Amino acid sequence: MRTLKLVIAYKGTRYAGWQAQGRNNQHTTGNRQQPTIQGTIEQVLGRIVQERVRVVGSGRTDAGAHALGQVAHVKTSSPLSCERLLRSTNQLLPDDIALMEVEDAPATFHARFGARSKHYRYQLVTAPAVSPFQRPYVVHVRSRLDVALMRREAAMLKGRHDFRAFARVSRPYKNTVRTIREITLRRSGSRLTIDVEGDGFLHTMVRSIVGTLVDIGRGRLPPGTVRRLLRMGDRRLAGTTAPAKGLTLIGVSYGSGT
Amino acid sequence: MRTLKLVIAYKGTRYAGWQAQGRNNQHTTGNRQQPTIQGTIEQVLGRIVQERVRVVGSGRTDAGAHALGQVAHVKTSSPLSCERLLRSTNQLLPDDIALMEVEDAPATFHARFGARSKHYRYQLVTAPAVSPFQRPYVVHVRSRLDVALMRREAAMLKGRHDFRAFARVSRPYKNTVRTIREITLRRSGSRLTIDVEGDGFLHTMVRSIVGTLVDIGRGRLPPGTVRRLLRMGDRRLAGTTAPAKGLTLIGVSYGSGT
Repeated sequence: MRTLKLVIAYKGTRYAGWQAQGRNNQHTTGNRQQPTIQGTIEQVLGRIVQERVRVVGSGRTDAGAHALGQVAHVKTSSPLSCERLLRSTNQLLPDDIALMEVEDAPATFHARFGARSKHYRYQLVTAPAVSPFQRPYVVHVRSRLDVALMRREAAMLKGRHDFRAFARVSRPYKNTVRTIREITLRRSGSRLTIDVEGDGFLHTMVRSIVGTLVDIGRGRLPPGTVRRLLRMGDRRLAGTTAPAKGLTLIGVSYGSGT
Repeated sequence: MRTLKLVIAYKGTRYAGWQAQGRNNQHTTGNRQQPTIQGTIEQVLGRIVQERVRVVGSGRTDAGAHALGQVAHVKTSSPLSCERLLRSTNQLLPDDIALMEVEDAPATFHARFGARSKHYRYQLVTAPAVSPFQRPYVVHVRSRLDVALMRREAAMLKGRHDFRAFARVSRPYKNTVRTIREITLRRSGSRLTIDVEGDGFLHTMVRSIVGTLVDIGRGRLPPGTVRRLLRMGDRRLAGTTAPAKGLTLIGVSYGSGT
């Protein structure tokens, strides 16, 4: 039995997310009208290796969110080379999902339990118009944003905090403490890119952080909101949850060389 | 009557090109199954200004090719502000077409006759896999490319030449002499970007140039091919015409300030 590490890119627009939001973390088909990324890859890969496979991702991504470097592992007895698996799978996958890398990994490699940190990117455009090239991946904000103020608020998020105010309450967490290693806001022309790296994220945490920062940046929430949210842990004080389409999982890091 | 200058971006994948390839340069619907970019904009803009409009582009783009900065003009008696026209049109346009700018122009402004130069970009990827984000806009080449050799060949194209060997013969040209002001090849990781600027281009000229350079870069055509093609003007010696999906019209320049 081999363990393969997969690096996967997808445009999430027409998917119900990486995995259906079923109970008990099980692989269910959930919403029957929209496929999942995981399910789609399992089907195609299964045809190629001619056995049932289970693709285990580093974690879920929301319906409509994208990935450039989602990581997953799969166990298979297929003798096919990694190059061949990559090419054949990509030939059968729909145009909005691609395997970017396939490699043999140690039998102990686990995409979810081994993940040390994740890097998410959120993209906003404040120009009067958004090009069709950017449109599926960015959120159009027509208000002027005070980016300097947003940066000062974002800086408060760095480090180890209880992020319960930024999590969707629908999931019961034992522990809502996470560490954000880096959060940066870069403006390039009319595009604002928010990069967040951390050891793990609660459900909708990045989108909730972005929504809150944008609400502060356009004056709907007062300066100091982030500090207050972290201290009081009350979700009702947070800003809007920013739309999933602006969010992309850029990469997942593992210990020593994987 | 106002003259409006439009800057238009589009993902050309599902269109029969900017304009249908009808006879006598007339605006025909051509292939009935695929809409044209021009026709789609005319329909939407016509609804907004409540009169029939004719959108005149700087030139055609091929079926499947894209644009970031196609320029067109339109005559209208609408009193709506440019900002309002931009926003309303974009709300009704399909997701793969967007007006990026709308501005009042002198009555003499003509998007086609006034165009001084055009900038096209062609994108190739040589990595084992192409991400879904790039896939609609790049061509995947699996062979290794000798980019240094391609650059030397490309340099031969600069300046004023008879480019008949690089034109599709289906259109009768009075004059096949054009000037290429700049042609550059940039490699960034596994992506190869070819930028071409010139005063005008024959039908499929950029794609034919790219196809020839790629065929030279992977050893299917010998060094010196470009010089021979320019001297002999024989299309049969040229390389493959590269697919339209890799081509994007980046911008169109006009004299003094437009």
